[in-house]
Amino acid sequence: MSEFPKGFLAAGWNAGIKDDTLDFGVVLSERPASAAAIFTRNNFPGNPVIVGREHIKGGVLQAVVVNSKNSNVGTGEAGLLLARDMCRIAAETLGIDMRHVLPSSTGVIGRLPLREKIERACREAKSRLKSADFPAFADAIRTTDKTVKLKSVSLNSGAKITIAAKGAGMIEPNMATMLVYAFTDADVPAADLDRLLRAAANRSFNRITVDSDTSTSVTFAILANGLSGVKVTFSEETARTLESSPQFLPALDGIGLDSVSLEFFTKFLELSQSLARAIVQDGEGSTKVLEVRITEARDKAQALKIARSIANSPLIKTALHGGDPNWGRILMAVGKVFDEPVSFEQMKIYFGDTLLKYGDASQLPELEQYLKRSDVILRISLGQGSAEERLWGCDLSREYISINADYTT
Amino acid sequence: MSEFPKGFLAAGWNAGIKDDTLDFGVVLSERPASAAAIFTRNNFPGNPVIVGREHIKGGVLQAVVVNSKNSNVGTGEAGLLLARDMCRIAAETLGIDMRHVLPSSTGVIGRLPLREKIERACREAKSRLKSADFPAFADAIRTTDKTVKLKSVSLNSGAKITIAAKGAGMIEPNMATMLVYAFTDADVPAADLDRLLRAAANRSFNRITVDSDTSTSVTFAILANGLSGVKVTFSEETARTLESSPQFLPALDGIGLDSVSLEFFTKFLELSQSLARAIVQDGEGSTKVLEVRITEARDKAQALKIARSIANSPLIKTALHGGDPNWGRILMAVGKVFDEPVSFEQMKIYFGDTLLKYGDASQLPELEQYLKRSDVILRISLGQGSAEERLWGCDLSREYISINADYTT
Repeated sequence: MSEFPKGFLAAGWNAGIKDDTLDFGVVLSERPASAAAIFTRNNFPGNPVIVGREHIKGGVLQAVVVNSKNSNVGTGEAGLLLARDMCRIAAETLGIDMRHVLPSSTGVIGRLPLREKIERACREAKSRLKSADFPAFADAIRTTDKTVKLKSVSLNSGAKITIAAKGAGMIEPNMATMLVYAFTDADVPAADLDRLLRAAANRSFNRITVDSDTSTSVTFAILANGLSGVKVTFSEETARTLESSPQFLPALDGIGLDSVSLEFFTKFLELSQSLARAIVQDGEGSTKVLEVRITEARDKAQALKIARSIANSPLIKTALHGGDPNWGRILMAVGKVFDEPVSFEQMKIYFGDTLLKYGDASQLPELEQYLKRSDVILRISLGQGSAEERLWGCDLSREYISINADYTT
Repeated sequence: MSEFPKGFLAAGWNAGIKDDTLDFGVVLSERPASAAAIFTRNNFPGNPVIVGREHIKGGVLQAVVVNSKNSNVGTGEAGLLLARDMCRIAAETLGIDMRHVLPSSTGVIGRLPLREKIERACREAKSRLKSADFPAFADAIRTTDKTVKLKSVSLNSGAKITIAAKGAGMIEPNMATMLVYAFTDADVPAADLDRLLRAAANRSFNRITVDSDTSTSVTFAILANGLSGVKVTFSEETARTLESSPQFLPALDGIGLDSVSLEFFTKFLELSQSLARAIVQDGEGSTKVLEVRITEARDKAQALKIARSIANSPLIKTALHGGDPNWGRILMAVGKVFDEPVSFEQMKIYFGDTLLKYGDASQLPELEQYLKRSDVILRISLGQGSAEERLWGCDLSREYISINADYTT
């Protein structure tokens, strides 16, 4: 039996957008699926995002069509028309409603992709879709990613979930240069799916940062075609219960989900966290994953602001890269969140499980040893309340510079 | 005749704080000087900043005492006591009021400087102060700076101004890891001096960024001992006129200054801008200075937010480093200021004097050529109003990583 959810076909191939790597991917559900999606908050969204926002309003999708190696942003009317035509031509070829197609384009900004190549690829969609070749799809949506990011899970209820993700640079919480597509054969109403997606995103893909820059193309979408017959719900009350908890991840069995929905959300979240982490691990030039945990904050907003200041600080990222326990930079990064003063006396800093003793030089070798790990956890307890947040980042290396100093030319 | 203002002695020497480079500096005015100072906005200010804030309240200073190679931040009660003792011992040695001493310590955060060495250096202050050796003082306040930053000007009015500055990393507008000391023999009331200092800072030292990180020790102080007899004023009305102008730098002869004060402020501002630029030029790993000009903004706050987003974007900084005209990243950086939407159609981007034509690939070689300069001006006209701002930044290179990946150890 396939590891992938029922009723989806997937393909990825080379459409010659830039070179001879895979650069075009399509996933098709055999019937219209209920769907939800989150997009970039950047004020200059890509044209596919503009079209995607229109199409997701109906709560139904049947296909996603993606090209990599060239985004469709800052390309004016011609670009908007091309994004619509991507959907129109793919829909004609596949025999579905064009409003049920979610388009994405990722890659360099400001150049119109070659219309002829995009059109041809869309016309090929049907002939290419012979099987559930999710690995090829996940490969084709990459730009600077080194690894293919694809994970699947089979639930006890019988439903399955597959998520394909891409992202390596221009990644900042809430709006990474990230494309993430989740597919499931569970049966989830669109409104429930939307709440579930947002709840998972705020504990995974919305909690990562590579370089604090904010892509114009980010998309996180889920299609649930219901073909497994497994019913999943995620009520408004559940979403509220989860949001109002001060914990980053409260006990999920206390948020009012039936056992099938609980398993679905739990596994969906695990998959999302695992892929979000994979994006940070594959971050441009990244050699280490940094998990920043803020605890005992006044509220989650405060915790998140401070977590971002730490995870985005170039000085902390370089110290992490060098394995240098220069904790003064953590102090600096907490202190530069001007509107969220923290008491130095109340604050506690942990490297993993080890409480930092300010000014105790004899502790430095132990901290230095800890920073040699490829997974580092910094926990800062603010001593102000009970709210928590987490954020995943990475170090800053010479390779980040190499990758980004001459990316277009 | 000396190039330096009358009545100041200055010295810099090695006090053995870390190595054998100059690391201790003192400037003394022969009489109490009216004074003003601006400090870091970081919520964990260094202990010398805490003491400096107390001392500047009186509007009078007679000496500045600075050590480099070790800050005094995150060092608790012992650190605060040491910062006070720096002032007390120096004041005793120099025969002045300890409340008239401004202390600074810059360098690695979180380690208490060796009290014995600081005390000994303070006791040596008098014997070291034999002349106006500002070059040695400016040398001694450096940490990772490669260049000594010292500039002086003689005014037609007969007054003189000298500014010594240091700063290379942990630099972000409003609160750089920056120490800047200005000395003049003009006669300026403390309240006027404070307004003048802030007006100049907001067009120079508060408009630079190296790495978006915010030092805990920044200090920008001015001492005016009046010994030239030249009277300078800077009224509240002048300050208001200047602030209410939408221009970054309106015609200064229109802000209500008498001719002597006008010359003073004009030259003080020029000196400040020149040194601010020198800091960015000497920014850690910097090979190019980027001037970001935002014009036709709705208001200055909007202009500054967008300028910061551009100048701090790692992707723009690396593209600048590689001389890559990847203008899509400018679009991204303007668009990621979520609360300040800008119309893509109204916005114009200039590389120097050249208007970017979106999507015209034939223009790229010209833009690439322009980016090879060591001074690059990016101007973004928002088409929303008449307000302007400017910000100076630099590129991001492998050397920044090298410098910061193992700075303490």
